[in-house]
Amino acid sequence: MTEKFVVIGGDAAGMSAASKAKRDAPDTDVIVFERGEWVAYGACGLPYYIKGDIETVDDLVSVTPSEFINERDIDLRLKQEATTIDTESQTVSGIGPDGEQFEQAYDTLLIATGAHAVLPEITGRDLNGVFTLHSMSAGRDIREYVTGARSERGSGLHDGSGTAVQQYLDVQPPETVALVGGGYIGIELAEAFVANEMTVELFQRGSHLLSDFGEAIASKVESHLRDQDVGVHLDSEVTEIVGGEGNVTAVRTANTEVDVDMVVIGAGVRPNVSVAQNANIEIGPTGAIATDEYGRTSASNVFAAGDCAEVDGVVSGEPIYAPLALTANRHGRAIGQTVTGNPTVVGPAAGTAAVKAFDLEAATTGIVDHGDAEELGFNPITNTIEAGSRAGYYPGGSPITISLTADRETGRLLGASMVGKEGVVHRINSIVTALHAGMTTTDVEYLDLAYAPPFSPTWDPILVAAKVLNGQFDNEPVVETESDEMFDSTWN
Amino acid sequence: MTEKFVVIGGDAAGMSAASKAKRDAPDTDVIVFERGEWVAYGACGLPYYIKGDIETVDDLVSVTPSEFINERDIDLRLKQEATTIDTESQTVSGIGPDGEQFEQAYDTLLIATGAHAVLPEITGRDLNGVFTLHSMSAGRDIREYVTGARSERGSGLHDGSGTAVQQYLDVQPPETVALVGGGYIGIELAEAFVANEMTVELFQRGSHLLSDFGEAIASKVESHLRDQDVGVHLDSEVTEIVGGEGNVTAVRTANTEVDVDMVVIGAGVRPNVSVAQNANIEIGPTGAIATDEYGRTSASNVFAAGDCAEVDGVVSGEPIYAPLALTANRHGRAIGQTVTGNPTVVGPAAGTAAVKAFDLEAATTGIVDHGDAEELGFNPITNTIEAGSRAGYYPGGSPITISLTADRETGRLLGASMVGKEGVVHRINSIVTALHAGMTTTDVEYLDLAYAPPFSPTWDPILVAAKVLNGQFDNEPVVETESDEMFDSTWN
Repeated sequence: MTEKFVVIGGDAAGMSAASKAKRDAPDTDVIVFERGEWVAYGACGLPYYIKGDIETVDDLVSVTPSEFINERDIDLRLKQEATTIDTESQTVSGIGPDGEQFEQAYDTLLIATGAHAVLPEITGRDLNGVFTLHSMSAGRDIREYVTGARSERGSGLHDGSGTAVQQYLDVQPPETVALVGGGYIGIELAEAFVANEMTVELFQRGSHLLSDFGEAIASKVESHLRDQDVGVHLDSEVTEIVGGEGNVTAVRTANTEVDVDMVVIGAGVRPNVSVAQNANIEIGPTGAIATDEYGRTSASNVFAAGDCAEVDGVVSGEPIYAPLALTANRHGRAIGQTVTGNPTVVGPAAGTAAVKAFDLEAATTGIVDHGDAEELGFNPITNTIEAGSRAGYYPGGSPITISLTADRETGRLLGASMVGKEGVVHRINSIVTALHAGMTTTDVEYLDLAYAPPFSPTWDPILVAAKVLNGQFDNEPVVETESDEMFDSTWN
Repeated sequence: MTEKFVVIGGDAAGMSAASKAKRDAPDTDVIVFERGEWVAYGACGLPYYIKGDIETVDDLVSVTPSEFINERDIDLRLKQEATTIDTESQTVSGIGPDGEQFEQAYDTLLIATGAHAVLPEITGRDLNGVFTLHSMSAGRDIREYVTGARSERGSGLHDGSGTAVQQYLDVQPPETVALVGGGYIGIELAEAFVANEMTVELFQRGSHLLSDFGEAIASKVESHLRDQDVGVHLDSEVTEIVGGEGNVTAVRTANTEVDVDMVVIGAGVRPNVSVAQNANIEIGPTGAIATDEYGRTSASNVFAAGDCAEVDGVVSGEPIYAPLALTANRHGRAIGQTVTGNPTVVGPAAGTAAVKAFDLEAATTGIVDHGDAEELGFNPITNTIEAGSRAGYYPGGSPITISLTADRETGRLLGASMVGKEGVVHRINSIVTALHAGMTTTDVEYLDLAYAPPFSPTWDPILVAAKVLNGQFDNEPVVETESDEMFDSTWN
């Protein structure tokens, strides 16, 4: 008898699992239910599509539905929304595009239902010109609204937003956009809209953008955005979206009202867990589906992966919610191996994230927040240094700012954030590796990192950051600059 | 009684040790003998000075002699060549600038005598227009020879090459240069001379440039150099430098003769060990001074560091000769702490090296060569992959080529080389960190490396390289491309 591997959700985790299972065990029946029309897409690229760097939204699709169906022999069923899992009879049931019911038996099941955009309780959310960037269709709608041009749509599959777009075409292209939320999406969209010659007003409820990165790094990003003429409004919760004739005209906070003709809400995401929850599958402390080291849920033969599931933190060993692309891909792929007889751990996540903010790169990994670290029983200490990206005498360098956080008792590195114009995102990967290895700041200080004048000072900024933080454990002087005792000398 | 810490050699290791010792224990008498006139200089920057990116050779000096003397209270004695160490009486003796003898007692001694350029046995080495890049003065001579301009010299200390430069001014600026040796210096100088509109012919005795990097990476560098109109002559040992009227006119190999009017020999360096050897201090198997984990030599109270000393390899744990800037700085600094009562291990080196070759970056770390790996008892396997530097849909990306070497028995990562147009040098630092931690290829495959479309695909090329190599241990299919099962999808 052929095994049936059923997948709910056709993005990174789901399609990685489906592809890997089919490849490793071609006799397996692999059936994927996707409630939308898009699969295996690069949603991370949407801001760059909106910016105009990427020509069509289809460029973000890495493998098309027909390739999955015809070339990979995966039974991909679009516009089929799985609504119920019966873990006793091992069946999934749901509704197709014309309201018809379906039911499907499984031997193993993967829940890869992803996440949804958080929509804060703001009046005026339904006005024309108010968007979230929660899907590929939403990305296309935003691009069309911004350019005032309706593109030719290649696929008969598309419907979703057609009506809304028709309405948009009756109004002028927007000139000023309010971005609600100062996370990655807000910052990437700020760049995208400025490139479209729009005025951008960015509203953040908390005291800093990129709240996970820590104040020192976030404030560098904030001043850079302001240098690009982005209005950065901190401690500014948008409480109302004001409209006239059905179109947005302004946003209001407790202190101010700003005229805008477009709003994009990017207030984070929450896991889609209702299908799992209704099947009495355990939800973890973070609100996402609890899983073990193989991605198994509390129900027999049911796995979960991607933005709907928890993952173990590299530093804490405890479940965290880190809805990131690589984790989804990796976990899906591991589960594809496990369900076809090759048990493979899904692996932990450090929570590494990177963002381009105009001319800056910023990245973070591990645990930077002291509250989070203390909850885990650590005694955190953070220090921030600034150092050059290249040898001091080599032209074109620029400062890199690094915050390192460690446990004061053991010296163990807990996390890092960085920002600068070059060499930031790849530099943080050394820290990621150090976190996976459980290194101390002393271990990091001794790393034999690469040196050549065009790429770094003799002492890479990471080494300086580790050394300075290390010195603070026993109250040595805080700052030792490169020109002080860290020379840039001898042959490389 | 004041302790006397004496240092022989005033570059990275020596001045790092001197500065750190004086800072941590200001009562220590710190005396440095430097046979030349330059201290704490960035010789790695000389190719960029010759290129014209850096205005004056003085820009490469991070701390001047007078700053060491007046601000740091270090007894720096220039043009004093230490020739003899008496380890019984604990004295150093030598010769000053006017031939006068000196003798100096020490409580602790650091030998930081550096390295010298290898000069292959080639007839015609003494012709006008033949150089090595072995010192700051040599760098200045080359720049002056190339530009045909004699710069104003700020310092009365300089003498060395004045006469030679006077002679150069009687001839035309050169048009074609032969570079003898295809290591870092040769490649960096190729870029420098092309920028000066010269024709460059690069001769390498072995079958590839950058012999430490492995063939796959080296051949990418070779074709890029050829694209820049550099003549790359492999398996081409220069056997004779031909001259006329005292000036170089051509170089000869077994097969060919090429007309040139300048030659730079960059055939590697050897440690300066004669002073140590004459004092019966142990020389290690690599030909450099043997040291323990604190940088101590076989003689009591005598340390060695920098380009004259061995260092333990990160992968092997065995002594290697890795004359690199960071190691010299780090070991000098650690010894400065140890001699002032704070015992500090100097730390091992992975042998990490990086080089810019026109528009390419190349880097290597650990053990890539199979012969070297087998000598250490490993069963090496290497695989090379090519992957994009950015998300496939994001503009401006370019291929990165990565060779990973691991031990087939244990899966332990042994080394890596990489080349590409962006993100190579900092990417290799993750591998450096993995080598320090003793990670396997599976460990590397599970790293939660940073992802954002402008900086990497969802699966960073390092992860792809580790996964593919890992698959080869048990003969899984070799290549899985990103578009195959490694999607670039979901939010970052």
